[in-house]
Amino acid sequence: MSTRRHFLQKASLTTLALSLPFSDSIAKALGQQEPKVLRVALMGLGSYASRVAEAMKDCSRAKLVGVISGTPSKIEQWKQKHGLSAQNCYSYENVDQIKSNKDIDAVYVITPNGLHKEHTLTLAKAGKHVICEKPMATTAQEGQEMIAACKAAGVQLLIGYRMHFEANTLDIVKKQRAGEFGKTLFFQGLSGFVIGNPSQWRLNKLLSGGGAMMDIGIYSINGARYLLGEEPIWVTAQETKTDPVKFGEGIDETITFQMGFPSGATASCLSTYSLNYLDKFFLSGTKGFAEMQPSTGYGPIKAWTHVGPLQHSHVTHQTTQMDKMAALILDGKLPLIPVDGEEGLKDMRIVDAIYQAVKTGEKVII
Amino acid sequence: MSTRRHFLQKASLTTLALSLPFSDSIAKALGQQEPKVLRVALMGLGSYASRVAEAMKDCSRAKLVGVISGTPSKIEQWKQKHGLSAQNCYSYENVDQIKSNKDIDAVYVITPNGLHKEHTLTLAKAGKHVICEKPMATTAQEGQEMIAACKAAGVQLLIGYRMHFEANTLDIVKKQRAGEFGKTLFFQGLSGFVIGNPSQWRLNKLLSGGGAMMDIGIYSINGARYLLGEEPIWVTAQETKTDPVKFGEGIDETITFQMGFPSGATASCLSTYSLNYLDKFFLSGTKGFAEMQPSTGYGPIKAWTHVGPLQHSHVTHQTTQMDKMAALILDGKLPLIPVDGEEGLKDMRIVDAIYQAVKTGEKVII
Repeated sequence: MSTRRHFLQKASLTTLALSLPFSDSIAKALGQQEPKVLRVALMGLGSYASRVAEAMKDCSRAKLVGVISGTPSKIEQWKQKHGLSAQNCYSYENVDQIKSNKDIDAVYVITPNGLHKEHTLTLAKAGKHVICEKPMATTAQEGQEMIAACKAAGVQLLIGYRMHFEANTLDIVKKQRAGEFGKTLFFQGLSGFVIGNPSQWRLNKLLSGGGAMMDIGIYSINGARYLLGEEPIWVTAQETKTDPVKFGEGIDETITFQMGFPSGATASCLSTYSLNYLDKFFLSGTKGFAEMQPSTGYGPIKAWTHVGPLQHSHVTHQTTQMDKMAALILDGKLPLIPVDGEEGLKDMRIVDAIYQAVKTGEKVII
Repeated sequence: MSTRRHFLQKASLTTLALSLPFSDSIAKALGQQEPKVLRVALMGLGSYASRVAEAMKDCSRAKLVGVISGTPSKIEQWKQKHGLSAQNCYSYENVDQIKSNKDIDAVYVITPNGLHKEHTLTLAKAGKHVICEKPMATTAQEGQEMIAACKAAGVQLLIGYRMHFEANTLDIVKKQRAGEFGKTLFFQGLSGFVIGNPSQWRLNKLLSGGGAMMDIGIYSINGARYLLGEEPIWVTAQETKTDPVKFGEGIDETITFQMGFPSGATASCLSTYSLNYLDKFFLSGTKGFAEMQPSTGYGPIKAWTHVGPLQHSHVTHQTTQMDKMAALILDGKLPLIPVDGEEGLKDMRIVDAIYQAVKTGEKVII
């Protein structure tokens, strides 16, 4: 009896530990080590940083501990709102001092695209892991420099691909890899919204590196790659501009682009700053199909296949992303779809090719 | 009183005539002429001719009265099944004798694409109105010759654009013209199915004039034009072939193509013989959108906008088409979207441009 009772007690404790969210008290009760937490500072305090900070409140493996900003008043607000310690807050002038800060493990770079390279290089030199928002840079050349710098410094470089951790997306990727759609021969990605304030950094070539393509077109590029499970071998692209005042030199308003893949699959995509209602992925195979709409928005992703709708419940994307990135950095746990610098570089090479194809009017071999 | 009574009688009779389907008895009661009926012969007795013949049983303005076929046994079957008189049945050898046949008004040419021109010229010379299945020809040059021949002979040339009479399609076209979607800047057309029997005429260049583009890609071309309400000014296109045995020289398996329009709108389309589940139109504007899926299939068209689903009930497309074409030929009643030779020629010019763009890899200005 005592043996059976002991077994039941143990089983019950294990069941409890497995069925509840992992908590310190249970871990302690089981005599396990506390799970390590990734201590993160956010660099660039725009609206997306606020979204990430809010999402991180629900993280179990990542914790917001600091900020880097060029605006002192913002730092004050963030310190108060998020209970940040003063010594974990930096300006762009003194950010190199972060090197000696033992309380910060990683920095999430959420500054304008045109500053990603410079900021990543600074942080790598300071020995911090870098999570860099997508697009990782404005050109593949910059991306390569960032990868090299992080490698030389022995820090990780991750790109903020939140969709790579989203449950519906991963389910469709798994189904595709398992052959449930047959041979997937066509991907369609439509990425667009009507951009507001014409004076924002996204419409400033030096800061953005480009227009809609850099901001949202990259979702269709990335989506084509993870849903088809191949890398493109050619790209063609066509640009249209209806408002050359709002969308100046080097800022693409609308680009349609196509990619060809080794299997014979093609992708046909739209990137635009002039139309709403555009956040759609469609994957077509010889045995079935998958659709996602919205496919990359911040809210719940709606996905269905020829069999029926997927039912994965919504978790704030940035919460999952930061927890999984912590697990990657701290435990080396690799995700199904990579989120490293090389993954970011693959997209940047395609962005480069698209701009080249627009310029030359010719098919660009990648 | 007698004046008022007379007025009411007259009004009641008029209301009856307007509110009920037009019938011979009411027409006779009102002392009107019987509505004229278009007496049609079908040329080329393949499966689509059978579908048209079946649909015409429900027509009120068009009647199947004859056939033209190269297969005597088929003529026998059709004579019996449809109660056709022997003098209204022709072979390809004696079809020119149709000139003296006063019981046939028009011929619907449903032969392989590569024969459309020759057959249309023969029928025009015989003084018969021609309804020619789409694509009207295999090149714009052929289309122009057909238009010229019919004009010279004083007969009408209509192209079998059944979607131009479909209720959901027309509703979306009207909404677009009324500005309900705002400025429409993007059209996407996906047209594809997996083609079976590799020895069919559709995969024989001489008979088909091309592959999927001629057969179904033309739906996306045409759909882009009627949903955007503009004519393209440029075309780009990319070809992919995964099965060069089944899809030989000159038979396109898969082509992605794009069109640019004067307003700045773009169309991004897919034409393929290698994927099912592809019959989708998407029209995106600054104030809303429309989707159709299926968008051109023979069955019920499913359409919805940002406001909600459209509810027009299904009527067999070919029934409506033949009744409306009879009204066009007999009464000169023009449809909202043209179905004449010029309309067909516009599509053929784009098909020519797409093939040229595939060949040269360059943007083709139309």
